[in-house]
Amino acid sequence: MALDPSFKMVVLAGGVGGSKLLVGLQRLLPAEQLTVIVNTGDNIELFGLYIAPDIDIVTYTLAGIVRTEMGWGIEGDTFACLERLVAYHGEERWFNLGDRDLATHLYRTQLMREGVPLHEVTERVRRHFGLGMTILPMSDEHTPTTVLTTEGPLHFQEYLIRRRTEPKITGLRFEGIESARPAPGVLDAIAAADAIVLAPSNPLISLGPILAVPGIREALQARKDVSLAISPIVGGRSLKGPTDRMLRDLGMEVSAKTVADLFRDIVDHFLLDQQDAAEAPAIRALGLEVTTAQTLMGTSEEKVALARTVLDWSLA
Amino acid sequence: MALDPSFKMVVLAGGVGGSKLLVGLQRLLPAEQLTVIVNTGDNIELFGLYIAPDIDIVTYTLAGIVRTEMGWGIEGDTFACLERLVAYHGEERWFNLGDRDLATHLYRTQLMREGVPLHEVTERVRRHFGLGMTILPMSDEHTPTTVLTTEGPLHFQEYLIRRRTEPKITGLRFEGIESARPAPGVLDAIAAADAIVLAPSNPLISLGPILAVPGIREALQARKDVSLAISPIVGGRSLKGPTDRMLRDLGMEVSAKTVADLFRDIVDHFLLDQQDAAEAPAIRALGLEVTTAQTLMGTSEEKVALARTVLDWSLA
Repeated sequence: MALDPSFKMVVLAGGVGGSKLLVGLQRLLPAEQLTVIVNTGDNIELFGLYIAPDIDIVTYTLAGIVRTEMGWGIEGDTFACLERLVAYHGEERWFNLGDRDLATHLYRTQLMREGVPLHEVTERVRRHFGLGMTILPMSDEHTPTTVLTTEGPLHFQEYLIRRRTEPKITGLRFEGIESARPAPGVLDAIAAADAIVLAPSNPLISLGPILAVPGIREALQARKDVSLAISPIVGGRSLKGPTDRMLRDLGMEVSAKTVADLFRDIVDHFLLDQQDAAEAPAIRALGLEVTTAQTLMGTSEEKVALARTVLDWSLA
Repeated sequence: MALDPSFKMVVLAGGVGGSKLLVGLQRLLPAEQLTVIVNTGDNIELFGLYIAPDIDIVTYTLAGIVRTEMGWGIEGDTFACLERLVAYHGEERWFNLGDRDLATHLYRTQLMREGVPLHEVTERVRRHFGLGMTILPMSDEHTPTTVLTTEGPLHFQEYLIRRRTEPKITGLRFEGIESARPAPGVLDAIAAADAIVLAPSNPLISLGPILAVPGIREALQARKDVSLAISPIVGGRSLKGPTDRMLRDLGMEVSAKTVADLFRDIVDHFLLDQQDAAEAPAIRALGLEVTTAQTLMGTSEEKVALARTVLDWSLA
């Protein structure tokens, strides 16, 4: 199967889960044919530094320097600065900022204070690592995700890391999202794509913020015919992270069908793990075409295999 | 010799040279009887961080964590963040910022951006290390020292570190010093001191900026009778750093007498190294009393010995 050099794929992704698919696609698709639109709802300011966790996870992963075991941070990084920093502040250490990783946050923060927008910082970091694909933040605006819980509102990172997803969720709020604009390049990439893929990321707090930026969901609706979503729910559990718990807390069924339902206005096609094949009829009943495949991405081979399935679909 | 618990000593200091004397005094004088007024003319903003090298040198030294070999930085510190940071910026690495040291700069920068003045940040860091003396920046205002050279103006740190004091100096400028105010506590400490000591720091760019803050020199002139300066020039060379070279570039004789002349309006007493005893008559001719002693501070014992000489003078 020869790949048309004008073929363009857009992937919407959060952090760790989405990056696994991207690693597979990176092996199959020339870099300049791939655009990633990344969630920035989990961005957070800590210690005066502007941190964009999902952008860094995607960039470090594609650059091949990510801490493999965790899926975030830089392999072999040390934590000397952070230890002193939390001691100064008299705080517990709950967010991990490695010494090498801190350089990214310092670089980003300084540029942003000088007025350089997030998408341009992201671009400079990408070029620094010699990466050829396009990596776009969903928006240059800061729209932190607040998790509303029975214990009060928490920044998503506090909910996820500090509180280990323990508080029961009652809702989500994407702060300031009404006035956020898609980052330059986002709408153009969606309009020009030959295929659009929603990575198996958390539909609520990874893909949810992207889709909530005014204009993005509408742009995707117009490209429904070339769009595919991959279920992050396999066998009634999330591939990675708290998706299952969050769905349950919010009174939703923990199933691939629930995810399909969330995306039925923006994708025509749904990729389901083979062990959930029994859900296929219900998802087809939502008006979606369904493909089943092995979607677990534990090994490199499995990442490439899922990417191959996605690419086959897009070229079909 | 019993020390009156109400006895108070004030030391004006730059970085490495002054800190050696402070280490000696720390061993002899209860901490609460010692106040250090520190030069901030070499403060610099790098990578979006506000760095106060002399304050950190003094604090780290008194806290016993300074990198002994160099006299600055933190012992055993690593440089992982800085290596990545200069790579991002495509710059050479000329200023050393260790990973643990960076925590101090991050902590300071965040607090200052929130409106906490430098003297309060300095106080919090001091307390963090459990130090009992008072450490005061000369001023809360940023008054960077510009070294005017035949190659153009340079920030002092660039002259000292990046250019290794190679360019010929034609003058010095303390930027914004006219509108700087002494930090809270500085004038009170000078007024209340039983003894005031000018450490053997660079008279031009360590003590010079302190004396140039409007109000400080005048306050010291009023306390001339309890004040002593220690020569940083020994045997026609500076104990530490570029003092000799700077004096020479500016057409001044490299001698203890030159230093005595710079301070004759604010001290009554001058402490000279014994190998420069021949200069004593010329310094007495300036109207100063002269004591000679061994002023080199290579070992702990020598630091304490010089501090003992200073204390003996102050109690005489």
